[in-house]
Amino acid sequence: MPRQRHRSPGFALLLTAAIVTLAVVGAAHLAAQPAGDEAPTVMPRYDANGALHLPDDYLRWTFVGASLGLSYNDEPPQRESFNHTLMEPTAYDHFVRTGEFREGTMLALLVRSTEADAMPARHGRFASDVLAVELAVKDKERVEAGWAYYDFRGGANALTTAQPQPPGNRCYACHIDHAARDNVFLQFYPLLADAAGLTVD
Amino acid sequence: MPRQRHRSPGFALLLTAAIVTLAVVGAAHLAAQPAGDEAPTVMPRYDANGALHLPDDYLRWTFVGASLGLSYNDEPPQRESFNHTLMEPTAYDHFVRTGEFREGTMLALLVRSTEADAMPARHGRFASDVLAVELAVKDKERVEAGWAYYDFRGGANALTTAQPQPPGNRCYACHIDHAARDNVFLQFYPLLADAAGLTVD
Repeated sequence: MPRQRHRSPGFALLLTAAIVTLAVVGAAHLAAQPAGDEAPTVMPRYDANGALHLPDDYLRWTFVGASLGLSYNDEPPQRESFNHTLMEPTAYDHFVRTGEFREGTMLALLVRSTEADAMPARHGRFASDVLAVELAVKDKERVEAGWAYYDFRGGANALTTAQPQPPGNRCYACHIDHAARDNVFLQFYPLLADAAGLTVD
Repeated sequence: MPRQRHRSPGFALLLTAAIVTLAVVGAAHLAAQPAGDEAPTVMPRYDANGALHLPDDYLRWTFVGASLGLSYNDEPPQRESFNHTLMEPTAYDHFVRTGEFREGTMLALLVRSTEADAMPARHGRFASDVLAVELAVKDKERVEAGWAYYDFRGGANALTTAQPQPPGNRCYACHIDHAARDNVFLQFYPLLADAAGLTVD
């Protein structure tokens, strides 16, 4: 039986090592990629000075809200802009599952110019250039209210890192006063509320 | 030197086995997940009657375009709606890389009602209920022009499968006549054109 000749203690050791290694590598792989659709949790990244990095892939985040000409001031805006809100996908999945914005949740607001007169459209406006990018990030270690707001501006003034708005900034009070859920204006995001099975009054 | 005592032939074999196994498992992992951001290609699914399934996850697709009140008719629309265009992410990645819509590319158009009067907004409108969902799918085997159009309607009439619009439908001629690129109205999607480094005249 020629095969038996290979069954030396060395071969047994090799086999055991291979099985143990497979098990260890397999376990590490499962830990990095949770079961089902769930991707590894994505968290905000800060530089040594505590400035938030604008994530490279934020334009691929999940679309949750849209408006035109939305303004919180008494006077109507001089020029209407489109606002589009995107949410980091792993935080989105968590919200859809639990109805909660977990620590590290990031929402991006794109402020965009309007454009018209492109065929075949004979009426209406579509969203064009990104004028400004703002992020809202849930991070209790930075801000007592739980959320901090960052302005990355746009165009020639666009930033890749930004410090949080200072505590006196009106973003904070307005979000605390008016947000339908945990400092987030869920009242403007029916797609997001629906996806989590929530009703906003 | 106590450490040297462990360097037996058995240990060397174990170490070799572990390294080989790691290499094999690592290679298998790379094969299942292509390099970079690239995920496995997602394609449209049809039922036995040739109807297209509305993908479960289309609300998670990549956001590429937005408009309000866009109409292709001479008369202005009686009621303005928001239109939001989402693109299946693996086809989006392909387009960003190559500037081409590959076979199987899927674009979803959400037609949505407008809503106002939700604090803190004092002006403007935001997108609310999804009134209709339409898909454009590149599939040369089905349609000579390369793209087919599907109407999944919305609300109480929402469908989960749909047949392509018949060949005489005005979608086809209008897209052929006016699309900036390969039957797609890229002129309304500056974010998508920018991401692929394209300029639309």
